Amino acid sequence: MPVAPEVPPRRVHVTEVGLRDGLQNEPVVLATEQKLALARALIAAGVREFEVTSFVSPRAVPALADAAELVAALRDTPGLHLSALVPNPRGAERALAAGVDSVVLFVSASESHNAKNVNRSVEASLAGFERVARLLEGSGVALRGAIATAFGCPFEGNVPVQAVGGIARRFAELGATHLSLGDTTGMATPPLVAERVHHLRGAVPDLPLTLHFHNTRGIGLANVMQGLALGVERYESSIGGLGGCPFAPGASGNIASEDLAYLLEEMGIDTGLELDGLIGAARLAGELMGRPLPAQVSRAGPRLALAECAAVPTARG
Amino acid sequence: MPVAPEVPPRRVHVTEVGLRDGLQNEPVVLATEQKLALARALIAAGVREFEVTSFVSPRAVPALADAAELVAALRDTPGLHLSALVPNPRGAERALAAGVDSVVLFVSASESHNAKNVNRSVEASLAGFERVARLLEGSGVALRGAIATAFGCPFEGNVPVQAVGGIARRFAELGATHLSLGDTTGMATPPLVAERVHHLRGAVPDLPLTLHFHNTRGIGLANVMQGLALGVERYESSIGGLGGCPFAPGASGNIASEDLAYLLEEMGIDTGLELDGLIGAARLAGELMGRPLPAQVSRAGPRLALAECAAVPTARG
Repeated sequence: MPVAPEVPPRRVHVTEVGLRDGLQNEPVVLATEQKLALARALIAAGVREFEVTSFVSPRAVPALADAAELVAALRDTPGLHLSALVPNPRGAERALAAGVDSVVLFVSASESHNAKNVNRSVEASLAGFERVARLLEGSGVALRGAIATAFGCPFEGNVPVQAVGGIARRFAELGATHLSLGDTTGMATPPLVAERVHHLRGAVPDLPLTLHFHNTRGIGLANVMQGLALGVERYESSIGGLGGCPFAPGASGNIASEDLAYLLEEMGIDTGLELDGLIGAARLAGELMGRPLPAQVSRAGPRLALAECAAVPTARG
Repeated sequence: MPVAPEVPPRRVHVTEVGLRDGLQNEPVVLATEQKLALARALIAAGVREFEVTSFVSPRAVPALADAAELVAALRDTPGLHLSALVPNPRGAERALAAGVDSVVLFVSASESHNAKNVNRSVEASLAGFERVARLLEGSGVALRGAIATAFGCPFEGNVPVQAVGGIARRFAELGATHLSLGDTTGMATPPLVAERVHHLRGAVPDLPLTLHFHNTRGIGLANVMQGLALGVERYESSIGGLGGCPFAPGASGNIASEDLAYLLEEMGIDTGLELDGLIGAARLAGELMGRPLPAQVSRAGPRLALAECAAVPTARG
């Protein structure tokens, strides 16, 4: 399938998922105050949309045990949209009590990943979502859908686009306001992006699509280019490229927010993000995690951060 | 400038530059036998075009002091195209004597980078090329042109497209058969790629264009996507992402051959390259350099290298 001939959007919405997807797989567990310092740096750089945490069992994901405290602390900052993953009605109740703007319900498009992730069938996950949807009625809190392994499953391989479309329709029936396609282990490719975006625009034409890529195989931003060529306006990324994958040791995590923001800025696409601020936040994230993060712009500096010209020739071509 | 609406090519030519651009900036100097082991692994993976070395002063670039030996050793393998950089007529004589298929003449599009690199003005470099062109007459060895800092200069910043076009015309007048645009310190962006490709197609319509990107700011393959959308059929890359930049410490080097090959293969574009073989070569390169290389596919494995599905749920969304 060729790169599509459409015109890229003028404005792109970037949701920062570093505090959730970025941190849940990192060996270092940050204190709430450290997460807040990172969030404040991101807010100063223009970030307004955060997938801020996940209301899962603290035993399953200790790094996110402070979900309610984190939401409460960020609630003081005006103008933010805070979303949080919830795996079940109990998590949704906790998220509502904490004061999120939207809850994200997630299910994998492949049975084996869903079983590994939440220990139930895809159908059982979807049935559980109906109880969450009823909980949200009248609360003013939006429901968002996220489909993991939407571009491939690390256990099963290719995932039929119809499986993704079928789940998307269920989310639409539940009243979801957004749908995110998760490239959980970095298996998305430009042709798969095009195929899935076209299919979903047919299946759920009223549901805005968000693309959530991992850079596991180095082509995360190539997939963004394909998304832009198709006119997709919403992307998720993680500051510094925080995160990883428990099934692919050594692999990179989410696409990095500062690399994405750099690409979009250079393409003349408005994001509301400020690159120098993101680079500062990425450096803070690296310090907090105690390791170099995979993102590039934060290491190399912005495009026009000029070097000194010393006099020694190098003849390097 | 929007992503162009053209159809990507069905076939792409990838020139492996790891032995030249990749090694010249690495702190570890490989023995000729180690380079040959890497070259053999690459040949086994389908690589047929190598920018194999540079006939520069061994004092300036000790890592490439074995230029003649390396070319002589690879000459025994049929079906290869071996090119080498030459900075001056003396280098061209050495390259001719060694038996290369083409010599690559290089000049920067910005004065300060050219001064830093070869200690002369752009005009003085171009004048010197005429002597090399005369040397090559009747030799059967092709002349290729390479323009460094073609998308920006680390000392001067933006580089006018007219500077690139003017040099390109000089290369065309010299009888060059190919022209490579070097993104020396990773300053290329999709709009700059589109601008430069369009301009050069007007300025030198008969000169096939090669795009040579560095992944310094993480968007190397996004730039390839733009090149593909414009129908550009020739790219240069480095196995494992070998290489770096003396002006941007910690920055990534060339785009990685295996990540590029993975992207192209997944897009249904024929390269003649075999991904598993490239991954093996990249791992060998990492062992030889004694450090993890920045490429992703060689760490994460191919897309459908499936994981085992253990029973413990992770609830990671």
